[in-house]
Amino acid sequence: MALLIAVSGWDSESWTSRFEALLPGHDVRSHPETTGNPADIRYLLAWKPDGELLRSLTGLEVIFSLGAGVDHLLKHPDLPDVPIVRIVDPDLTMRMSEWVVLQVLLHHRKHRLYHAQQQQRLWKGHDQPAASAVRVGILGLGVLGADAATALARLGFQVAGWSRSPKAIPGIQSYSGTQGLEEMLQRTDILVNLLPLTGETTGLIDYKLLSRLSTDGRRHPNCDAPVLINAGRGGSQVETDIVRALDDGTLAACSLDVFEHEPLPAPAPLWTHPKAYVTPHIAADSDPESLSRYVAARIRAHEAGEGLINVVDRTAGY
Amino acid sequence: MALLIAVSGWDSESWTSRFEALLPGHDVRSHPETTGNPADIRYLLAWKPDGELLRSLTGLEVIFSLGAGVDHLLKHPDLPDVPIVRIVDPDLTMRMSEWVVLQVLLHHRKHRLYHAQQQQRLWKGHDQPAASAVRVGILGLGVLGADAATALARLGFQVAGWSRSPKAIPGIQSYSGTQGLEEMLQRTDILVNLLPLTGETTGLIDYKLLSRLSTDGRRHPNCDAPVLINAGRGGSQVETDIVRALDDGTLAACSLDVFEHEPLPAPAPLWTHPKAYVTPHIAADSDPESLSRYVAARIRAHEAGEGLINVVDRTAGY
Repeated sequence: MALLIAVSGWDSESWTSRFEALLPGHDVRSHPETTGNPADIRYLLAWKPDGELLRSLTGLEVIFSLGAGVDHLLKHPDLPDVPIVRIVDPDLTMRMSEWVVLQVLLHHRKHRLYHAQQQQRLWKGHDQPAASAVRVGILGLGVLGADAATALARLGFQVAGWSRSPKAIPGIQSYSGTQGLEEMLQRTDILVNLLPLTGETTGLIDYKLLSRLSTDGRRHPNCDAPVLINAGRGGSQVETDIVRALDDGTLAACSLDVFEHEPLPAPAPLWTHPKAYVTPHIAADSDPESLSRYVAARIRAHEAGEGLINVVDRTAGY
Repeated sequence: MALLIAVSGWDSESWTSRFEALLPGHDVRSHPETTGNPADIRYLLAWKPDGELLRSLTGLEVIFSLGAGVDHLLKHPDLPDVPIVRIVDPDLTMRMSEWVVLQVLLHHRKHRLYHAQQQQRLWKGHDQPAASAVRVGILGLGVLGADAATALARLGFQVAGWSRSPKAIPGIQSYSGTQGLEEMLQRTDILVNLLPLTGETTGLIDYKLLSRLSTDGRRHPNCDAPVLINAGRGGSQVETDIVRALDDGTLAACSLDVFEHEPLPAPAPLWTHPKAYVTPHIAADSDPESLSRYVAARIRAHEAGEGLINVVDRTAGY
């Protein structure tokens, strides 16, 4: 019963000790330190594993992806043909909604303007639309998108979401398909991306898409509209197009937590763009404690003969 | 059926035209332009009216306070002894919760730190507690406090509230009385004030109170705790004490929308304090449209013989 932890860029030791405590009787190894005979490995717990390792795991039963997306696994042509289990962690979902709600409110409540006024000791109020006059559109209505959508609806925003297949979420307008995307963009003041990275979503957020967003929000003076918020994957955005859209007014502002290349290179203009909020991929860090409990519970259930849940559809890419 | 609009510091003309449209058949006047014979006035719609005017309104039936608080009325010794109706406007409540949620998240998600890093083009994540590990305490569990409390609970925070009399709000721990205040402060990382200004709440938020807040939150590196957020009334805070608490570390940070003297005087150290967010009393601006519909509906109901609602208890002060 060997399980292998292969977390490139993370500290693997804390993960090893966690799983040793959670799964007594299992041989917990970490790559590359103690991989041992790769053919013994039944479970792979991976974050950005290397292709060579993947090819060597001939006895593998299940892969657990230790993060919100699986694009880091699916890009490997040699990925063993076994089920991949996604992390669906309530803690991670809550963190993502916190970040999304914060960014929406920063733009909605003109934080940048008021903060600049504070530096100038300037006491001056500005016309403020109600949340009920502001239309948020969310790309992706999976677990993360649905939770962010209902959190924003609770604050009074008019929330719609777009997904591959139509979804029924109380209080949230659902769009799907190519025509649905067009319709949602046209009614959106604040666009939030929470889509997984797949062939279809790569480069989706380009100048053409941004120029289809509603400009109605500009009727309010000093109003940031339209706005782009991306906490999904950097590969879904075209950063040169975002900078162009910010510069020519197609976009009023953006909040980006993810980038085409991470870390965002120091010369990137987004770092100091006056209309951009940049955070270093921290919107929803996996909590190692909560995440390892989740994976251990799934392994125990699998060994007790129960089916796997949250298994990735490789054709869809998530 | 004369009604008088007396809104010092606001543009009275837009209010006059609104009420003429909403209440046909009523004689809508505005002070000081067209007060006419003060004895004709049945309804006073007031924001910070002057004492001389109040003394002259001998035929008054009802006073409507055009803002969230009534301290601007109750401070007048000559206030006519008629019912004062408070504004309980869902739009105003939503706006207040937006501002409170934004400020809580700004501190919780280390916005100031990440924004400083952005200026330095620095890609660096920091340990982030889950909302479920953070305890928010709300002073005041009226309509505003209860809504902010449930909005924050929806985001996962551990929320408690303190009020004069115990309240039962699902998911919110309720404290009341002097002993209850002490207990709530001791378990609070982020303190939010939404109390009305009364004799009892004047100067309540002083150094002594701030030093009773929990310091447990400091176990998280770079964590802003404890934090003070005030969107109630400036008269409830002692600003020299807040600055002292920020400077000596008793408070990690604050967000203030209200001040002892408004506008906040330019030399005030809070303006540029590196641990303070200052906004110019804009947390929950009354929307004139929604507010005038509310008052007109209350006047129609009163004239139809229905009782008044949301009448101020002058002894309690709100």
